[in-house]
Amino acid sequence: MIQEFLPALEAEIAEQDLGKSPVELYEPIRYLMKLGGKRIRPVLCLLGYSLFRDSWRKAVSPALGIEIFHNFTLMHDDIMDKAPLRRGKQTVHEKWNDNIAILSGDVMLVNAYQYLNKTEDLSLSEYQYLCQRFNRTAAEVCEGQQMDMNFESREQVQVAEYVEMIRLKTSVLIGLSLEMGAILAQTNREISDAMYRIGELIGLGFQLKDDLLDVYGDPEKFGKQPGGDILSNKKTFLLIRALELAEGPVLEELQTWLAAQKFDPQEKVQAVTAIYTGLGIKAATEREINQYFDQAFVAMDELALEAGKKEGLLKFMRGLVDREV
Amino acid sequence: MIQEFLPALEAEIAEQDLGKSPVELYEPIRYLMKLGGKRIRPVLCLLGYSLFRDSWRKAVSPALGIEIFHNFTLMHDDIMDKAPLRRGKQTVHEKWNDNIAILSGDVMLVNAYQYLNKTEDLSLSEYQYLCQRFNRTAAEVCEGQQMDMNFESREQVQVAEYVEMIRLKTSVLIGLSLEMGAILAQTNREISDAMYRIGELIGLGFQLKDDLLDVYGDPEKFGKQPGGDILSNKKTFLLIRALELAEGPVLEELQTWLAAQKFDPQEKVQAVTAIYTGLGIKAATEREINQYFDQAFVAMDELALEAGKKEGLLKFMRGLVDREV
Repeated sequence: MIQEFLPALEAEIAEQDLGKSPVELYEPIRYLMKLGGKRIRPVLCLLGYSLFRDSWRKAVSPALGIEIFHNFTLMHDDIMDKAPLRRGKQTVHEKWNDNIAILSGDVMLVNAYQYLNKTEDLSLSEYQYLCQRFNRTAAEVCEGQQMDMNFESREQVQVAEYVEMIRLKTSVLIGLSLEMGAILAQTNREISDAMYRIGELIGLGFQLKDDLLDVYGDPEKFGKQPGGDILSNKKTFLLIRALELAEGPVLEELQTWLAAQKFDPQEKVQAVTAIYTGLGIKAATEREINQYFDQAFVAMDELALEAGKKEGLLKFMRGLVDREV
Repeated sequence: MIQEFLPALEAEIAEQDLGKSPVELYEPIRYLMKLGGKRIRPVLCLLGYSLFRDSWRKAVSPALGIEIFHNFTLMHDDIMDKAPLRRGKQTVHEKWNDNIAILSGDVMLVNAYQYLNKTEDLSLSEYQYLCQRFNRTAAEVCEGQQMDMNFESREQVQVAEYVEMIRLKTSVLIGLSLEMGAILAQTNREISDAMYRIGELIGLGFQLKDDLLDVYGDPEKFGKQPGGDILSNKKTFLLIRALELAEGPVLEELQTWLAAQKFDPQEKVQAVTAIYTGLGIKAATEREINQYFDQAFVAMDELALEAGKKEGLLKFMRGLVDREV
């Protein structure tokens, strides 16, 4: 079943229901959606749905609504972050311009709601609950992006604040993906809440893994040189934790690298990575990641379902735990 | 009844259901919503609803959704147009910055959907139809804004293209306002379609009146100096029509003003206005405006309702026809 999800989603993306004119508005949406990505969110939605029902094709359109929403946030975040590349290609605001990326993103958010509205079979109150959860989560993702931008200009960020930021920016939407699967399959509130919580935990582990791979990823597998976050002084879990743990000359060395205006990039990445490693940051981050993933697996265990039903989702979750890309 | 609409809407705006943190995200929304405006769209929605039902308070929240959507478009359009002022106050991107205006606008669009979702009493298919109409219209408004931006860099724009642009950018949302009133009151599709068409016609007259007032408005009543569109060479109905009608030395004079890099603003406004007046543009625009308003009143006549029911809406429509502000 799960091997059918991606082709079904890609087929729907290939025929994405969008206006035609003006082309400046719709072409960037097609461009960004076709850059690919792992489609983790809609796949999780379909996996969540499949725990309770077999008719997963009915959930493809609203699941795609989540993916369109996710890509909308990428389009607008890339403007705000002045990012030149996305998935190795020019970002929309670089390829066209800022105004087009703003307006095209706006239509994309509307388009996400158009796909959400292709939901079938629910009662009005079930559908309005689905919309309510989608809306709340969408607002939270924006809150996370604003927190992330605020952190850039702050001297100090605590681990708890950082975790709250990635929870909002990344995890709530992964939580919603699983939850929407459950709501679309008309399970009860207790189960859909549990599904949300599982997704939220996976999302936290997932984002921390991203931070880890950015420093310790194998460049051959990861597809890019590690150290991007180190070069931009991004206050990730690793840096925040290192600043907490470092003392004396190690702290001084780390702060010297953070303050340096001119440096050899490779040298900075190697030096900061060595500091992290010396402080045991790699292991500490892995512990943190595993703790979230473990909690997610425990919550999956507690879901009262035949074991066979859960296999697809569990396998997909393990893939996220073990990923090196 | 109608005199209760505005206070009810303002009360709901004063308590607008928004997140609290980060403040950078929510403060601009409160700021823009409280700058005022005539609240034409939600009032039209409530007037439309009241043609069919008395329980208009049930429609206040979704009506406000339209107003929030409208203000969202203003926030993002002002970034794209680099506008310094909105309703005489600093625009959001000026008071804060572009990134905040982008992200705050995004949350505002989500918030519009949150208010739309406060719809009561409909069946699922009625509610999904409401969402479908809202979504389609929202996309069209963005299409209109893109067309408007495209026109800026074009040499020539035809009257028909201009009318299509203002139809998308302004009229469809005014159409939707009346239509949503009808859908919320659970009328049939034939009636809600007719209501949409009435609103669309009003919207066309309304926008052309805006163009006219920008040149011929009484500065005492209009609250600002006329001629803004003339100074920015904006391709309004008046300029497009003037370029079609002008010949020989009059055309040359007009084109000289359009090409001029250095000029005395007051002199340009006076000269171009004189050209318009000489070409009969004022009367031609008034005829065009009246034609749309007349069609709207004819369509209102054809609505099979007791005459007394229509009075509030007709009075409001006449106010839009006669406005000098």
